[in-house]
Amino acid sequence: MIVVMSPRHTRAEREGVVRKVEEAGLRAQVTEGVERTVIGVIGDSHTKELLREGLEAMAGVESVVRILQPYKLVSREFHGGRDSTVWVRNVAIGGGRVVVIAGPCSVESPRQVIETARAVKLAGAQLLRGGAFKPRTSPYSFQGLEEDALKILAEVREATGLPIVTEAMDARQLELVVKYADMVQIGARNMQNYTLLRDVGRAGHPVLLKRGPSATVEELLLAAEYIMAEGNSNIVLCERGIRTFETYTRYTLDLTAVPVLKRLSHLPVIVDPCHGTGKWKLVTPMARAAVAAGADGLLVEVHPEPDRALSDGPQQLTPQNFAVMMQELDAIALAVGRRV
Amino acid sequence: MIVVMSPRHTRAEREGVVRKVEEAGLRAQVTEGVERTVIGVIGDSHTKELLREGLEAMAGVESVVRILQPYKLVSREFHGGRDSTVWVRNVAIGGGRVVVIAGPCSVESPRQVIETARAVKLAGAQLLRGGAFKPRTSPYSFQGLEEDALKILAEVREATGLPIVTEAMDARQLELVVKYADMVQIGARNMQNYTLLRDVGRAGHPVLLKRGPSATVEELLLAAEYIMAEGNSNIVLCERGIRTFETYTRYTLDLTAVPVLKRLSHLPVIVDPCHGTGKWKLVTPMARAAVAAGADGLLVEVHPEPDRALSDGPQQLTPQNFAVMMQELDAIALAVGRRV
Amino acid sequence: MIVVMSPRHTRAEREGVVRKVEEAGLRAQVTEGVERTVIGVIGDSHTKELLREGLEAMAGVESVVRILQPYKLVSREFHGGRDSTVWVRNVAIGGGRVVVIAGPCSVESPRQVIETARAVKLAGAQLLRGGAFKPRTSPYSFQGLEEDALKILAEVREATGLPIVTEAMDARQLELVVKYADMVQIGARNMQNYTLLRDVGRAGHPVLLKRGPSATVEELLLAAEYIMAEGNSNIVLCERGIRTFETYTRYTLDLTAVPVLKRLSHLPVIVDPCHGTGKWKLVTPMARAAVAAGADGLLVEVHPEPDRALSDGPQQLTPQNFAVMMQELDAIALAVGRRV
Amino acid sequence: MIVVMSPRHTRAEREGVVRKVEEAGLRAQVTEGVERTVIGVIGDSHTKELLREGLEAMAGVESVVRILQPYKLVSREFHGGRDSTVWVRNVAIGGGRVVVIAGPCSVESPRQVIETARAVKLAGAQLLRGGAFKPRTSPYSFQGLEEDALKILAEVREATGLPIVTEAMDARQLELVVKYADMVQIGARNMQNYTLLRDVGRAGHPVLLKRGPSATVEELLLAAEYIMAEGNSNIVLCERGIRTFETYTRYTLDLTAVPVLKRLSHLPVIVDPCHGTGKWKLVTPMARAAVAAGADGLLVEVHPEPDRALSDGPQQLTPQNFAVMMQELDAIALAVGRRV
Repeated sequence: MIVVMSPRHTRAEREGVVRKVEEAGLRAQVTEGVERTVIGVIGDSHTKELLREGLEAMAGVESVVRILQPYKLVSREFHGGRDSTVWVRNVAIGGGRVVVIAGPCSVESPRQVIETARAVKLAGAQLLRGGAFKPRTSPYSFQGLEEDALKILAEVREATGLPIVTEAMDARQLELVVKYADMVQIGARNMQNYTLLRDVGRAGHPVLLKRGPSATVEELLLAAEYIMAEGNSNIVLCERGIRTFETYTRYTLDLTAVPVLKRLSHLPVIVDPCHGTGKWKLVTPMARAAVAAGADGLLVEVHPEPDRALSDGPQQLTPQNFAVMMQELDAIALAVGRRV
Repeated sequence: MIVVMSPRHTRAEREGVVRKVEEAGLRAQVTEGVERTVIGVIGDSHTKELLREGLEAMAGVESVVRILQPYKLVSREFHGGRDSTVWVRNVAIGGGRVVVIAGPCSVESPRQVIETARAVKLAGAQLLRGGAFKPRTSPYSFQGLEEDALKILAEVREATGLPIVTEAMDARQLELVVKYADMVQIGARNMQNYTLLRDVGRAGHPVLLKRGPSATVEELLLAAEYIMAEGNSNIVLCERGIRTFETYTRYTLDLTAVPVLKRLSHLPVIVDPCHGTGKWKLVTPMARAAVAAGADGLLVEVHPEPDRALSDGPQQLTPQNFAVMMQELDAIALAVGRRV
Repeated sequence: MIVVMSPRHTRAEREGVVRKVEEAGLRAQVTEGVERTVIGVIGDSHTKELLREGLEAMAGVESVVRILQPYKLVSREFHGGRDSTVWVRNVAIGGGRVVVIAGPCSVESPRQVIETARAVKLAGAQLLRGGAFKPRTSPYSFQGLEEDALKILAEVREATGLPIVTEAMDARQLELVVKYADMVQIGARNMQNYTLLRDVGRAGHPVLLKRGPSATVEELLLAAEYIMAEGNSNIVLCERGIRTFETYTRYTLDLTAVPVLKRLSHLPVIVDPCHGTGKWKLVTPMARAAVAAGADGLLVEVHPEPDRALSDGPQQLTPQNFAVMMQELDAIALAVGRRV
Repeated sequence: MIVVMSPRHTRAEREGVVRKVEEAGLRAQVTEGVERTVIGVIGDSHTKELLREGLEAMAGVESVVRILQPYKLVSREFHGGRDSTVWVRNVAIGGGRVVVIAGPCSVESPRQVIETARAVKLAGAQLLRGGAFKPRTSPYSFQGLEEDALKILAEVREATGLPIVTEAMDARQLELVVKYADMVQIGARNMQNYTLLRDVGRAGHPVLLKRGPSATVEELLLAAEYIMAEGNSNIVLCERGIRTFETYTRYTLDLTAVPVLKRLSHLPVIVDPCHGTGKWKLVTPMARAAVAAGADGLLVEVHPEPDRALSDGPQQLTPQNFAVMMQELDAIALAVGRRV
């Protein structure tokens, strides 16, 4: 059960609610967000039900909501059944257009990024991605250029006008990413890093939240709930492949998650066909399929010379292949009543 | 290593090859198909390599092929890099058109089937499906109307002109299915029932081979190889969802398998979005995605009253929803240069 | 709901039950086994409940059972909470002793089998396994010596007294296996081959039923239910590894399935650590673990020269390693109050 | 390739190595640990090989190691093939004894912890666990008593002498945990939280590293490598179940990982049968199996009143059941030549 406090409740009103909950032998979990404060009531179901009407009558309480689904703020019902739109600077994700975020896996040099950025913008990309801090399975793999990469990205934004998306893995990186970039990516490995989710929730910056490779759809929504419970509702969900027994592809891209997430939540949903497949030749067909399934956008890795990339070469498109993909997406987007 | 015998080789020539192989301490596995005979050479790699040129020089031998991939006849290379087309009566699967196979999960009554058949034909389906023998997880579930169902299907074909696809699970059922139907389905649970694969290979009838829920792409191709090694190349592959940890959907539809199979094999590939998702509301978006990914067709369950169906109700479309889906598919098919 | 007919019911009594069920708008599924006839009642739950008492009162009806779990005859409750014991000739599986079934993956020659049999018997094995018909992923792999292998196995039984276990994949093979061997194995790939399950149910021979690599525990029990519904209750269940994302081992041995199956069912449960791991060095620790988890036995592959085996060499023990394993099992068995 | 610097190398020597690597067009990744500094050399294999002997000859270089396996410091070879032992205060994990870590999932009150601690100590547990910071899938679930819990744990250590293990999820929590507890747990969800791994590597405190539910054995070892590359080799690995399609149990306990990890690495390996199964009735048989498979210890949740627990009630043992389990483990440990 969740007690949603009204926007202008007083500290005394809140403490009154907590006291009432605790006197009933239940536990109160206060979550203060930027926009609202919610008080989770934890404990025996029957006791909670007995308490419900009393809580609703208290001053400062907006509503008391039984939760059937374990997530609440991110659920479609909570947003009146409507889609929400996330703005990253002047780009809207979750509106009518299919938004393509493109760029290299890792930032390697100013020239690599500016070349890629110009090419992907020309082909129709609306946001630029590029890794500054790289989560690598091995400690001996290239770990990213860090703040230097962020500076390169910011300069390329000046030159091209493309807003920037890049990953942060901890509070320190988050501070830097918020300073330089327009949207912060929470990577698949950190989808259940609750401290980071809370931090990014408080930062208020637009968030690209990637599904963990073994996370259910419900767990992805609960991770988003952590962010939104801190008052940040600028969240874009991203399907990027789950772990299965199939070894031909790097992961198994779960495209069914797109219509499922759209039904359960109001948040925009995009797809990463590069990590999802691990093979660049499979990226374009799966990008087409993602849009046909209803995705609000795509996250695509593009590198001027994939065979020289410092990370994930086999799954990055050349600018030429990216341009071909964008043309094919145009046709699919039209077929589902959208534009790229 | 495989020795492909020339079409008009003699028995003596074949026996000569077998003898030579066995004298080298290797084992010969003769597979006689309708179109060709191939002799698999089993044993030590080095010995095989030494023997190769000698075998190639023998009378009656067309070619000796090293196998890098474990499947051979179904590989794209074996068919000169071209797609193959499978004809089911007057319908071509694997040509330019997207072929939709539709009908109820189980045949329940003449009226149910004829109503469904007329509706799906009107909406653009080209083949009719309907289960006569049902593989059910529980022995106490409805097991199908058996031969009565086949008779109903045959009558409906007379009335509508739609060729018939239905499943067989053993040799006796196969005999009946071949007698009444135009294409035999090998279900997911029987994908590695090698006896049945051989039987259907010898039967020569067009085959719809469904991927097992825990089969890799390579294992699916090897199952098709069993059929083709018996001389039957009229095989259509079908992706229908794999088993993963996700529980919101019945299976996880692995749409990436579509471009993967098309790259590795010349055989047509279709998709079953009903079993793959288990929820009818997800069928249409995943059908659109399948066509966008390059599928040659779809297998869709349609029932006049899904909530009264004797099997798989929750994943069957009504005729009305099917008609809407077909319209949406038209647009997607055009976007990828095809027609439904 | 299941109507269990009394052992000496008449045809008229049975027809009366079927008529009553059908008049209520429900469907009756008659399953005639050797020991008993059960009539599954399929359809609306409420109608079934209304009908229940009436059915119980009918002549020839022993009991009417609501099924909460989808399987019934194999459930522990059905057997009064007690373990059942399966006799294979003079060997009891499911009693106090841990029964080890050992032998080569494939029968290759009389000498190979007799050598292995003598060695494993000396070390304490109680049954001999050996493949005559081999289910192979590739049609070009060695497929077994077929009836010749069965004859070798039968001769070795004469020489050693060890009862024989071997696999059958279809009705024709089953007939031969029943003729020569003492226990028929249904392999993992055929766990949901319902025709074969029914055939083996009617054959009445002891059955070793292996869990499919993507089958849940419930599906394994339902497969056993198919066999038992035909009147054959001589079933031993076998855990042999499931498919997961882990690639270091061939499968992931799900040892938790052992206590789970023992809780849910009265049937004996054994473990195959060879297929489950795919690496002989892991076989002994996992065999120990299986016994510690409560397994009633083990299925272990032993070959005099594993590196020359025609199938599954890397996972077969040498007779020497097998003898070491047996000694270690002795200690574990004692620790859980059993003997090998 | 890894350049291992000698313990007393100078800054100039290190810079010389980096310069040489970069002049060859390769990238140098310097990792400074407490005990040693290693320089990962990243780039083209051929160039690396050419450079190898030159690097070995440089001042300050101890050795240059080709890495065949992607992990190095945690590999068994690196430790001369011997097991390593991790000391937590006066308790050795990885020596001859099977070490049992027991205690409640969450710290809820002083009384709950002291009661549990006394009971588990009496039954033979050597370390006390208890959650202060709880990673919960939902933001509305009980999140732990935080520093209050740590204080309770420290008091109970005074009273009982049992060293304390508890989880930290970020740098701030880590600081507190290091202050109060004797071993820090990195939970399954944070197994690839590289920032946290580095932090815990630098902290030098003993670490209990749990395998992520979708992590391969290799990825677990690489996560440990992150910690060890920072100079902390006091790492205990923990198998706690992986995600599969099976739904009867919460996860699938991958006990084969125990002998696999012991073969590949010198680090001690323990098993958590509570999370691995999710059902307390399965804990004891799987604990027995873990010890039989060669585990160096167990992590077991014990709660005086599991049905009133604030987290994970269904998988916690009562003190009584725990005592029974410990007795059974004694017998198994003896059977594999160890003691509990």
